[in-house]
Amino acid sequence: MRNYTMMTDLYELTMAQAYFNSNEKDKIAIFDAFFRREPLDSGYGIMAGLDSIINYINNLHFNEENIEYLRSLKIFSIDFLDYLKQFKFTGDIYAIPDGTPIFRNEPLIVVKAPLIEAQIIETALLSFLNASICYTTATRKIVEAAGDIPVMEFGARRAFGPDAAVEASKCSIIAGAAGTSNVLAGEKYNIPVMGTMAHSFITEADSEYEAFLNYAKAFPNNCVFLVDTYDVLKSGVPNAIKVAKDYLIPNGCRLKGIRIDSGDLAYLSKESKKLLIDADMGDTKICLSNGLKADTIRSLIDQGAIIDSIGVGDNIVAPDSSRVGCVYKNVGMISNDDVIPKIKLSGDTEKTITPGFKKVYRFYDKNTGYALADLIALHDEKIPKDEYTLIDPTDETNQTKITNYTVKELLVKIFENGKLIYNDPSIYDKKNYCANEMKSLYPEIKRVNKPHKHYVDLSEELLNVKKDLIKRIKNSI
Amino acid sequence: MRNYTMMTDLYELTMAQAYFNSNEKDKIAIFDAFFRREPLDSGYGIMAGLDSIINYINNLHFNEENIEYLRSLKIFSIDFLDYLKQFKFTGDIYAIPDGTPIFRNEPLIVVKAPLIEAQIIETALLSFLNASICYTTATRKIVEAAGDIPVMEFGARRAFGPDAAVEASKCSIIAGAAGTSNVLAGEKYNIPVMGTMAHSFITEADSEYEAFLNYAKAFPNNCVFLVDTYDVLKSGVPNAIKVAKDYLIPNGCRLKGIRIDSGDLAYLSKESKKLLIDADMGDTKICLSNGLKADTIRSLIDQGAIIDSIGVGDNIVAPDSSRVGCVYKNVGMISNDDVIPKIKLSGDTEKTITPGFKKVYRFYDKNTGYALADLIALHDEKIPKDEYTLIDPTDETNQTKITNYTVKELLVKIFENGKLIYNDPSIYDKKNYCANEMKSLYPEIKRVNKPHKHYVDLSEELLNVKKDLIKRIKNSI
Repeated sequence: MRNYTMMTDLYELTMAQAYFNSNEKDKIAIFDAFFRREPLDSGYGIMAGLDSIINYINNLHFNEENIEYLRSLKIFSIDFLDYLKQFKFTGDIYAIPDGTPIFRNEPLIVVKAPLIEAQIIETALLSFLNASICYTTATRKIVEAAGDIPVMEFGARRAFGPDAAVEASKCSIIAGAAGTSNVLAGEKYNIPVMGTMAHSFITEADSEYEAFLNYAKAFPNNCVFLVDTYDVLKSGVPNAIKVAKDYLIPNGCRLKGIRIDSGDLAYLSKESKKLLIDADMGDTKICLSNGLKADTIRSLIDQGAIIDSIGVGDNIVAPDSSRVGCVYKNVGMISNDDVIPKIKLSGDTEKTITPGFKKVYRFYDKNTGYALADLIALHDEKIPKDEYTLIDPTDETNQTKITNYTVKELLVKIFENGKLIYNDPSIYDKKNYCANEMKSLYPEIKRVNKPHKHYVDLSEELLNVKKDLIKRIKNSI
Repeated sequence: MRNYTMMTDLYELTMAQAYFNSNEKDKIAIFDAFFRREPLDSGYGIMAGLDSIINYINNLHFNEENIEYLRSLKIFSIDFLDYLKQFKFTGDIYAIPDGTPIFRNEPLIVVKAPLIEAQIIETALLSFLNASICYTTATRKIVEAAGDIPVMEFGARRAFGPDAAVEASKCSIIAGAAGTSNVLAGEKYNIPVMGTMAHSFITEADSEYEAFLNYAKAFPNNCVFLVDTYDVLKSGVPNAIKVAKDYLIPNGCRLKGIRIDSGDLAYLSKESKKLLIDADMGDTKICLSNGLKADTIRSLIDQGAIIDSIGVGDNIVAPDSSRVGCVYKNVGMISNDDVIPKIKLSGDTEKTITPGFKKVYRFYDKNTGYALADLIALHDEKIPKDEYTLIDPTDETNQTKITNYTVKELLVKIFENGKLIYNDPSIYDKKNYCANEMKSLYPEIKRVNKPHKHYVDLSEELLNVKKDLIKRIKNSI
């Protein structure tokens, strides 16, 4: 496990030295990590990155070389550098488990720790969260669009470097991908690796027929021929069929599949299917790829394209508007066991954060199992079991009374006094959990275009804490 | 140095086994890496990633664990796995040096190597290129928009994980950033680290004044106060001025700067400057941040905003439409010392690649120094010194005769027979080189919105090779 202790913005360390000097470092602070709107124009995000954050926290320490480097910057005091030598995390961390559908403004991670520790972990924690949630959310959008069609993650070459590629592969599996092309990810995380062939395999050979034949000889039981190098219908599919008849079938094998990676995929997949059926090879699978996005996949399905599997690269590892935008904000300080709520104001009211030490609840309809709404409440509030009135925080006149629900608390305690007390599930348990949780979302929230917004409400008590604090600060300015 | 040998799509290895089985593995192949249009809606890209590629190639080998993992997949033969145990790169690699402005369809990297080697390196090579060129191009767009105003890279928390963040920091420096907030990047690459403070530093304290005072005591010579936590003009700047007068100035120091991170930056920066001047502190610098993009920066400058430095995060490490889209295509095979050109056709003519073993030239006007055009030509073509007729490859009737030019070859030989023969410049040499090369581009190509396209032409000879090959293939289908 790599050590990312030094992966921090310089200002975390300069602030830390200021806390150290002013004897504030051990004041207990509460920080929330959250995003302000659901990423990727999606109706939901999918929580991820907790495994990386757990490893990061467990490995947190500055080694001799790190201290030497910091000393060389000539901005830190000897006392502070001595302190950093024995620095470790001693606080509490609560988190929403990986694979959970998540929504705007919900604390995904709550850190309650000595101020200096809570501050220093900010940068790395956000970097893990922002990257991982991007991959899982992007993948899930595609998986939802694809329905029962398996999705394969093929993005290694388009990822933000090899390390990002490996994390993207892992996250794509959690969010429902069937496998990845990335061998390093397969080795590291024991997830299924898959793949077909590249155009170069065809162009380097003297003919397309010869290229397919060579591949058939090497992998007679696992042939998926790439058929769009020269002309799908006039060359690629006919050559695939010919190699199947000349070599595979006489050897007791069959052509497993073809892949189409360019051109009009709806038309070409339907016409290819006809050619395969005419050749008595209708069981040959058709894999489509070529910059596929959720809405293209929906459109292909609507057009009756023949699709047995889908390969997706860019739109998992580097999707458009990839910005998840998780932030990490100081929302409270503990003083004599009381929480003093804290807030950063903003000219843009929607960006004003919600102060306080909080919990997140999800209400489910007892009959249908659908998630009715999420509620952000104060940490010590009691949530009534039978009836609850939800208040829209952006319009308090908009209130909804709900009954006949079950309620689940989303944040789980991960670290207690610096000690890991959470058993992080396997990638496959996360995958199953994610698939199940997604079933509880209304279809309208999972819609590809302009999804409906899941309700995310604040408790009345929390709303009052927020309003009082804003009023108090504004009066004092 | 980490080993990324296993960072490969599975299909590179299955194709490799097929080459191995059919005795084709040592045929000499030529592959080009290029993008099809300038990334990020920019008029240019900035080459980067070569240092990572050099390290990758130098470290290329499958260790025992890798072989064991591949064996466990039960798709590879013993002979092939034995071959992989001694696998290394023995070919030639040509590349355009890091920091060079680059354009659509130009071979950025040309690999001439045994087919099996050229194939296996595809995935990692593209991943390095795509990520690095994204960061450098994104940074340069911002640096060009900012003109003389220094740009600081603050993106660690928004990057695609810690490793991506460190590479983004390095690339941002090459492309002209003044420094980075990322301490790990500073330690690894010895580049300047910088930073100010976060809103949490203000909110955790009992008052904004007290927070600033604590920071002033810790770093009296290096205070940049973040002034937008509560209200820039009514609270932030007045408190900054008060701490300067109460503590910094009496101690022989001055307030170095303020940072504004929200609200209307044009208005707030101008009004803040007035307050500072009124307090006789007009030399205090103003740093702006908050999701700044190239066009926002141009607009701020046009509005007369006061800007002494700029902090940019997302728009360097995870910019909108971040897709560079470098591809790696087989463009030729060597047979008896002759190059057999190779091509993948496409229904979309613009996507049809240019075959052949090629060089890239840049023509500069002898008088002005401006880059007139780039030319892609066959490897053994002679380029006339005095007069040349450029042919637009998308419209052959569009021809331009140029004279009075100097011409530079862009591709440099990096590896020869597997041996590194190139002395990769330092980050700072790359930075200076990039800044100089950018001066040779017409301002219209550097324009933020709808930039003019730099001419990228094919030589007549190359164009004929391409047309003949397409005709030959189409006739044979």
